[in-house]
Amino acid sequence: MAERLVVIGGDAGGMAAASQARRRNPDLDIVALEKGNWTSYAACGIPYFVGGDVSDLDDLVARTPQEFRDHQRIDVRMQHEVRSIDLQAGKVEVHDRARDRTINLSFDQLHIATGARPMRPDIGGIDLPKVMGVQTLDDAEAIVARAHMTDCRHVTVVGGGYIGLEMAEAFCRWGAEVTLIEATSQVMRTLDSDIAAKVASAIRGFGVDVRTDLPVTGFEDGVVHTTEGEHHADLVVLGMGVTPNADLAADAGLDLGPRGSILVDRRQRTSVDGVWAAGDCASSFHLLTQEPVHIALGTVANKQGRVAGVNIGGGYATFPGVVGTAITKICALEISRTGLTEHEAVEAGFEYDVATLDTSTIAHYMPEAEPMTIKMLAERGSGRVLGAQIIGGRGAGKRIDTVAMALHAGLDTQQVIDLDLSYAPPFSGVWDPVQMVARRLLRGD
Amino acid sequence: MAERLVVIGGDAGGMAAASQARRRNPDLDIVALEKGNWTSYAACGIPYFVGGDVSDLDDLVARTPQEFRDHQRIDVRMQHEVRSIDLQAGKVEVHDRARDRTINLSFDQLHIATGARPMRPDIGGIDLPKVMGVQTLDDAEAIVARAHMTDCRHVTVVGGGYIGLEMAEAFCRWGAEVTLIEATSQVMRTLDSDIAAKVASAIRGFGVDVRTDLPVTGFEDGVVHTTEGEHHADLVVLGMGVTPNADLAADAGLDLGPRGSILVDRRQRTSVDGVWAAGDCASSFHLLTQEPVHIALGTVANKQGRVAGVNIGGGYATFPGVVGTAITKICALEISRTGLTEHEAVEAGFEYDVATLDTSTIAHYMPEAEPMTIKMLAERGSGRVLGAQIIGGRGAGKRIDTVAMALHAGLDTQQVIDLDLSYAPPFSGVWDPVQMVARRLLRGD
Repeated sequence: MAERLVVIGGDAGGMAAASQARRRNPDLDIVALEKGNWTSYAACGIPYFVGGDVSDLDDLVARTPQEFRDHQRIDVRMQHEVRSIDLQAGKVEVHDRARDRTINLSFDQLHIATGARPMRPDIGGIDLPKVMGVQTLDDAEAIVARAHMTDCRHVTVVGGGYIGLEMAEAFCRWGAEVTLIEATSQVMRTLDSDIAAKVASAIRGFGVDVRTDLPVTGFEDGVVHTTEGEHHADLVVLGMGVTPNADLAADAGLDLGPRGSILVDRRQRTSVDGVWAAGDCASSFHLLTQEPVHIALGTVANKQGRVAGVNIGGGYATFPGVVGTAITKICALEISRTGLTEHEAVEAGFEYDVATLDTSTIAHYMPEAEPMTIKMLAERGSGRVLGAQIIGGRGAGKRIDTVAMALHAGLDTQQVIDLDLSYAPPFSGVWDPVQMVARRLLRGD
Repeated sequence: MAERLVVIGGDAGGMAAASQARRRNPDLDIVALEKGNWTSYAACGIPYFVGGDVSDLDDLVARTPQEFRDHQRIDVRMQHEVRSIDLQAGKVEVHDRARDRTINLSFDQLHIATGARPMRPDIGGIDLPKVMGVQTLDDAEAIVARAHMTDCRHVTVVGGGYIGLEMAEAFCRWGAEVTLIEATSQVMRTLDSDIAAKVASAIRGFGVDVRTDLPVTGFEDGVVHTTEGEHHADLVVLGMGVTPNADLAADAGLDLGPRGSILVDRRQRTSVDGVWAAGDCASSFHLLTQEPVHIALGTVANKQGRVAGVNIGGGYATFPGVVGTAITKICALEISRTGLTEHEAVEAGFEYDVATLDTSTIAHYMPEAEPMTIKMLAERGSGRVLGAQIIGGRGAGKRIDTVAMALHAGLDTQQVIDLDLSYAPPFSGVWDPVQMVARRLLRGD
């Protein structure tokens, strides 16, 4: 009998692995179990579906279950939810939701890609149906259906991270009045407070009522209670971050890593032989702090899935680690970061110099020039670049890739200044903003 | 008496050096001689002045002569043209054009930043007043004045390089009918022919009559003669490339490098002690071919000028070399390149693999997604990235910086795939196009 690989989870971390394993090993029997209704989708596209930029959820799907079956001989089973993993026996217990029956499936190799779910802290009423998280396309369908169903005039977003801000903007575009409530003193805690303040100001300008330092104390139907009174809300969207779906793995006895993620090594091996994990449910590795870390991003899930699949299929591949790169667009503002913020640098034990530069996205004399701000950190002494944050108009955000590469290559500020980057007036000044801020760091220019 | 530095040329290569030298050595007597009317300007902005995006030439000036005098004690003398250099005596002979007198100026150190000039091959009539090159702000003034003066309905651009294409578009925007005549089989010989064909198609779509394989045989007033008949032209713009202004240096006996540029070492020293050069008149160094090269770009001029100035001022700095990065925007199309084209790779003795990918600038399901094409070369065997060319809609061009950095860092295609680049649907697919083409190169994905 052929060796069987069971994959739990039909999104990037699972299906990239299944595809690579198939490519390496044509004889493998591959069964992929997805509890929902979609495979290989771009969850990051959900706010653009809610906001109306994307009209059809199918547009967010890279490959359908049928395509996996037809082109890669992967036995994808939808509405199949794994209830438990028996590592000793090499079996998973699966609930077939459509037929409401339970089956047991044996495996030789197991790949866990169960993703993450929106955090739901222990606040009264957080499990009410109108308090909704956003993680899967099923969530996206449900949230838009509910918004249409109810006379949804006012939406409250709880939590000011990427997804919270993106959903706040999306519901503004959708036509609702939106309040965003953040328990801490700033939105986007992945940015330093000075940069985050500019984000808050931009989204306020777009019409979102942003309230910081305002912990939520409870939910009731139509009401969000906070430490400073209550807010009416026809719909509540949770944007308090995500937590790895690692319960199955934990119950099976696999070792866990940061934030309760499934701990994996650089080949995506878990603590048990023949069991792999990838994506939002798994740990990752930060190249600057040299520590395991949990990063729930589609780029990481795709890379880890590929690595797992190559290894499962008998090849050799390693996940290279992350440097903490992220980007988003809130209203007309592009926001990106990589490496360490000031807070993270301190936590990691680095001493650093920091510089912030207010400049323009392209040559200042061009009519399309817009403001941009770039902040950069470099290690004291060595001058090695430790991170950057960018906020600004069109063309600002993707410049973070230059800094991300500098982190990968371990460049110092002088080496950044030395780079032969592209220049023409519709794209930048003669010194790219990344080089200008490096100059300021190095020499106080 | 204070040591005197004489700088020939008031644009980036000269004034960046003067500024750095002043910063390092407050006692230096610095005299900068500029034959024209402008200092420290963005010549790359000229097409946008002609096209009407930039209304005032002063907007293209980073620092005026008076600012250099007031803030940096640099004795900038405009309309001062150096006629000869006497290295033995340590003197330059200068023609003060405003007063029409000749003076002799002694120097302890000499920095030559005489720039480049549009090529004027030996074709009958090429020196007619209506056959104009574009290099300095004085040229820009003259060309716009002449266009206004004459009833300029038809402009012929001779030569399809960056400046030729940019000027063709600019004169279209200005309201003229434009013919672009290129002697070889393709525009933009700095690109491979497949990519260049897309550029030609775009600029034709914009309304420019592009004629390739059509050598010009002569100019007369109002007429351009070619091997296949004549073209009416109220104004002719030369876009046949530039040649270094190295005559002064050559006459003084300095060694020359590629294309007749002034040969310099990595500290910007010429072949004679105490004599320096930087910018469009000087040689550069290509990090991939490991050969001296001549690159006339503002980025190089600024970097080289700084390096020269630091060294002149008693510090230590080296020019890091180039990887051949360039970018432009023609009509709505962003075009960029770095490293080696196929032709250049062959010439440099590399064997290579090549892949071309047609994709979209951002996530394909977003309404603002536009087509983009990226072509990448990697060394056979090692997989080391050798170069890339990009053409596409908004957001395509600047991605070349990621590849430029890969060249600096010597990354292979797997290392490019491993990079933690930024992703969100308004910016890219989950795999950045640079990584997608690297995947295709590596594994045929």
